[in-house]
Amino acid sequence: EMIKTLEERKFPIQNLIPLASERSEGAPVYFKEKCIRTKVLKSDSFKDIDFALFSAGSSISKEFAGPATEQGAVVIDNTSFFRMHKDVPLVVPEVNSSVLKSHNGIIANPNCSTAQMVMALKPIHDEVGLERVIVSTYQSVSGAGKEAILELENQTRQNLNGNQIEKEVFSHEIAFNVIPQIDVFLDNGYTKEEMKMIEETKKILGDDNIQVSATTVRVPVFVGHSESVNIQTKKPISVEKVRSLLSSMDGVNVMDDPVNGIFPTPKDLAGKDDVYVGRIRRDLSHPNGIEMWIVSDNLRKGAALNAVQIAEALVSVG
Amino acid sequence: EMIKTLEERKFPIQNLIPLASERSEGAPVYFKEKCIRTKVLKSDSFKDIDFALFSAGSSISKEFAGPATEQGAVVIDNTSFFRMHKDVPLVVPEVNSSVLKSHNGIIANPNCSTAQMVMALKPIHDEVGLERVIVSTYQSVSGAGKEAILELENQTRQNLNGNQIEKEVFSHEIAFNVIPQIDVFLDNGYTKEEMKMIEETKKILGDDNIQVSATTVRVPVFVGHSESVNIQTKKPISVEKVRSLLSSMDGVNVMDDPVNGIFPTPKDLAGKDDVYVGRIRRDLSHPNGIEMWIVSDNLRKGAALNAVQIAEALVSVG
Repeated sequence: EMIKTLEERKFPIQNLIPLASERSEGAPVYFKEKCIRTKVLKSDSFKDIDFALFSAGSSISKEFAGPATEQGAVVIDNTSFFRMHKDVPLVVPEVNSSVLKSHNGIIANPNCSTAQMVMALKPIHDEVGLERVIVSTYQSVSGAGKEAILELENQTRQNLNGNQIEKEVFSHEIAFNVIPQIDVFLDNGYTKEEMKMIEETKKILGDDNIQVSATTVRVPVFVGHSESVNIQTKKPISVEKVRSLLSSMDGVNVMDDPVNGIFPTPKDLAGKDDVYVGRIRRDLSHPNGIEMWIVSDNLRKGAALNAVQIAEALVSVG
Repeated sequence: EMIKTLEERKFPIQNLIPLASERSEGAPVYFKEKCIRTKVLKSDSFKDIDFALFSAGSSISKEFAGPATEQGAVVIDNTSFFRMHKDVPLVVPEVNSSVLKSHNGIIANPNCSTAQMVMALKPIHDEVGLERVIVSTYQSVSGAGKEAILELENQTRQNLNGNQIEKEVFSHEIAFNVIPQIDVFLDNGYTKEEMKMIEETKKILGDDNIQVSATTVRVPVFVGHSESVNIQTKKPISVEKVRSLLSSMDGVNVMDDPVNGIFPTPKDLAGKDDVYVGRIRRDLSHPNGIEMWIVSDNLRKGAALNAVQIAEALVSVG
């Protein structure tokens, strides 16, 4: 997805070097119709490299990000390892690219659910200030990797054919079910995914006083995360104003004419780059409350696209 | 489902008379291993009838509930038609059976999503008072009827086999998708289903000051509604206290040991009568906030079971 995005967006690349473990040595990678062979990732792999895009798990980022920066590369890290480090910027370019001005060689890419949510929160926070955010997610299986996609497909067939259900990736059946667990549980009763949404939202919006709570749920959808988001603003704001702020936000697309069946759903929007917002309405339980429904392709804005956009922003600031 | 429930719970019935439109005249209904033929519903169908259970749409309830009560039957109505009428009690027996003491012959059965939620809210409201409730639902297709179940099954096969997707019941594809619409949209941007949850919750809990907001979403699950519920109480309450209150509530089952994979999911609990609550934890965005996850078989507690329980409660109060 990352390589496809680099190609689609015509990122100025002289030399693309795919790195992986020994197991994948020599595996072909296609870029601009050329076949490039994968090399083995080593500590000295980063000489003369400008950007090193990491997306191979926290342990790899932990071990190799240091050597990469020492050799002069800027690391853009898709894992959670550096996200909450004080001296590592956590960036969604449309939201907080200004923090890119000073970094120590490592830039973190946020969690997919967080990235799409802060895109919609940012213009509202700038206008009237966010007091509180309560989010419930509807996350697709692709966020859990290739095996999870296969598991949904296999379990679906097993269900329809009346066969024994095989479970490997998810703790409970995912076909025709919803699972209120993403990542592992922590001592406070929240999952790691929920705590990522809570902490990363505050860091990206640059405001520790925003109160956030989250419930993250896996649903039997292949691609695209949806979020039911309830916000409470410091100053009152009208639904019309929210709609116009979101319409003016780069990378956000307002899709909100429900009477005519127009609202975002993940299946309709898989493969799109933008973050789609619909069902924008007054929260009937609070005078300063707004409800909305945010959908985005989690493989695009939530991962590959945002990483490439960070690289583009770094190129443009020099 | 209603007839099955009457039989399972050994409701004291001398004479069961299935009534329907002319189209279904003579259709066989099985009750206690006897075959009973369906009769045509008419204004004078209710002589010598004690309880008339209606579940054939609002227009039928509107037309025939009056004649039924005039002939001496007590009507238990599953449709939304009478729910918000001032002189019609809206009842979940474990929650507010006391209102059954005075009625004018018609008792309303609440919306399925509301019924399961108020079961969990009631003991907390009694203990510390509810200030605010924010709910996002994950509702199964069975709530939309037989055709909806077939549509999920057919679209799922069409997806897996790469065939053209056929849509009839739902506005958007439901297979491998989520749809933030249940019932029609109203002028305030909410759906009818969302407004039912908001208004019925206040009526059943007998407190118009509880602030409620709702987002109702259809998910590709056959049976069982799930709800991510955020509550804010008037007085503070500990998570342990919430757990013990819910454990003591009739018809509620606490299923909350997430580290060991124990939390409710709809597929695991289809066919069960109880309302299951898990993921109970402190809301990190508010000192008086609690988050929880409520799952129930929408065809049982949300419909047939609750209707039969209302009849049982009426029998027991004489």
